[in-house]
Amino acid sequence: VQLEDTNPRLSFFRSLSPAEMNQLASGVTRWLGGELKEILPGKLVAEFVVREDMTNPLRTLHGGIAALIMDEMMGMMVYLLGNPYAHTSVNLNCDFLHYAPVGTKLIATATVIRKGKNIIHCESEIRNDEGKIIAKSSSNLVITSVPIKDSFLKKK
Amino acid sequence: VQLEDTNPRLSFFRSLSPAEMNQLASGVTRWLGGELKEILPGKLVAEFVVREDMTNPLRTLHGGIAALIMDEMMGMMVYLLGNPYAHTSVNLNCDFLHYAPVGTKLIATATVIRKGKNIIHCESEIRNDEGKIIAKSSSNLVITSVPIKDSFLKKK
Amino acid sequence: VQLEDTNPRLSFFRSLSPAEMNQLASGVTRWLGGELKEILPGKLVAEFVVREDMTNPLRTLHGGIAALIMDEMMGMMVYLLGNPYAHTSVNLNCDFLHYAPVGTKLIATATVIRKGKNIIHCESEIRNDEGKIIAKSSSNLVITSVPIKDSFLKKK
Amino acid sequence: VQLEDTNPRLSFFRSLSPAEMNQLASGVTRWLGGELKEILPGKLVAEFVVREDMTNPLRTLHGGIAALIMDEMMGMMVYLLGNPYAHTSVNLNCDFLHYAPVGTKLIATATVIRKGKNIIHCESEIRNDEGKIIAKSSSNLVITSVPIKDSFLKKK
Repeated sequence: VQLEDTNPRLSFFRSLSPAEMNQLASGVTRWLGGELKEILPGKLVAEFVVREDMTNPLRTLHGGIAALIMDEMMGMMVYLLGNPYAHTSVNLNCDFLHYAPVGTKLIATATVIRKGKNIIHCESEIRNDEGKIIAKSSSNLVITSVPIKDSFLKKK
Repeated sequence: VQLEDTNPRLSFFRSLSPAEMNQLASGVTRWLGGELKEILPGKLVAEFVVREDMTNPLRTLHGGIAALIMDEMMGMMVYLLGNPYAHTSVNLNCDFLHYAPVGTKLIATATVIRKGKNIIHCESEIRNDEGKIIAKSSSNLVITSVPIKDSFLKKK
Repeated sequence: VQLEDTNPRLSFFRSLSPAEMNQLASGVTRWLGGELKEILPGKLVAEFVVREDMTNPLRTLHGGIAALIMDEMMGMMVYLLGNPYAHTSVNLNCDFLHYAPVGTKLIATATVIRKGKNIIHCESEIRNDEGKIIAKSSSNLVITSVPIKDSFLKKK
Repeated sequence: VQLEDTNPRLSFFRSLSPAEMNQLASGVTRWLGGELKEILPGKLVAEFVVREDMTNPLRTLHGGIAALIMDEMMGMMVYLLGNPYAHTSVNLNCDFLHYAPVGTKLIATATVIRKGKNIIHCESEIRNDEGKIIAKSSSNLVITSVPIKDSFLKKK
């Protein structure tokens, strides 16, 4: 899909250092501790590391954490498309393909597949640093009638 | 599905007080901070509260956290079926149906729909305390060849 | 969900005999050859029989035909809610739980789980006549801006 | 994924003319009337045309037919991997992205994403002949213990 390469949110996010980004993040985003690597319209790449507290009893990446990372990535990417109204996820489908033991570096990517007037269809995947696919997902997000206040679009 | 009502794991989990359970939990399970309310073969009910750090920018329950809670519930329920070999999630499909603002009490339920020799099909849902459905999901889990060491099945 | 029990479409469908219904159906609906058994607002029940030409090489119900039946049931049910604008499916998630050999009588049910202003979330399942679950699915449908012409709402 | 480029099934299918292929097909496969264009290990491409009897009331491709086409493509592709035991679908997730009116030529592709010992994860998509994506899906198939009799692997 063809998307514009600039809007105030994209510019702001690109202007932040990883430390500033981390300071901005809150709640579960900060807990996940990822680092954005590519910020494009309709595409987002970030790196995460599998920590001990992100694992299941087999000591590999918990499926629910993989789901959380991918949901978070797609939500942020849709926000960065610049729509003045908030979006919300309708659904999230995840497939878990390979294990990722503690310490694995994860490269997570989110991409817009279709940007409709109401519904945005996205995909996300997580690979390890050898390119092996760990998890993949797709999600439909709907644009709501709630306007987004971009008040935080200034460095603190 | 007809399932046996007793095995060492079920008995052990039923014997724990909420405080002991919390001590046993680790990583993301402890972070979620839920409390088990019903422990049945093939059915698990737990309560959670939507905390500030579990929300999206609309300050309602983050879809990824809902996914994480439901994945965790289904995984624990399958563990409590007593199979000597570890399971792993093949996929997780979530639908997000209503908002749950900060402070909402969540009742999460996981149920076995089909217990095959290799594949176990489960459902999970989250409701608020008025019974309104917040999120629902289904998941297929596969039994692996990795034996489970139940060494922690003793109170510390 | 609370839904009104009458609108011209519901009344019309209820007035048809199976033979009239079959005459009305077209394309793939006629090919499927189901018979409606319950027509309620937000719930639809129909019976089908697994024919030879609906099977996979194992000579059991083809997963794609199960998907087709459930998609068809949910679409018809949403139509019978009486909305003046056409709906379209955003997604369809199916799980296949048991085999249904040639000759099996199938009871297919579709239900509305959430009727939002824009998005309608439905479930559908197929059971055999002993109540064993063959397949289940969920789907999100979105209301479009295309008005429905109900011109066919008269017996031919 | 790396897959072997030859087995008796692949060779046989590649040896057939479209007319012979059509004669071989049965039931719903013959009804769909597709034509195979590429037969590779782990990848299959076929063309279909949207007929009047494949549409919904909007006279565009019925979502359930799109689901059926993609399920059929993935099943055939997994069969062509050459495994001596039959597979069966565990689940099928479809997203419907654009309309395809009557007469549209459809290019359907199925691909193996992960070939595990027990579970095979596949994707399928349908595009129109301008490359616009109409529908996409993913599916997990499990290898059963039912041996496949390849008796039909000879021209009639």
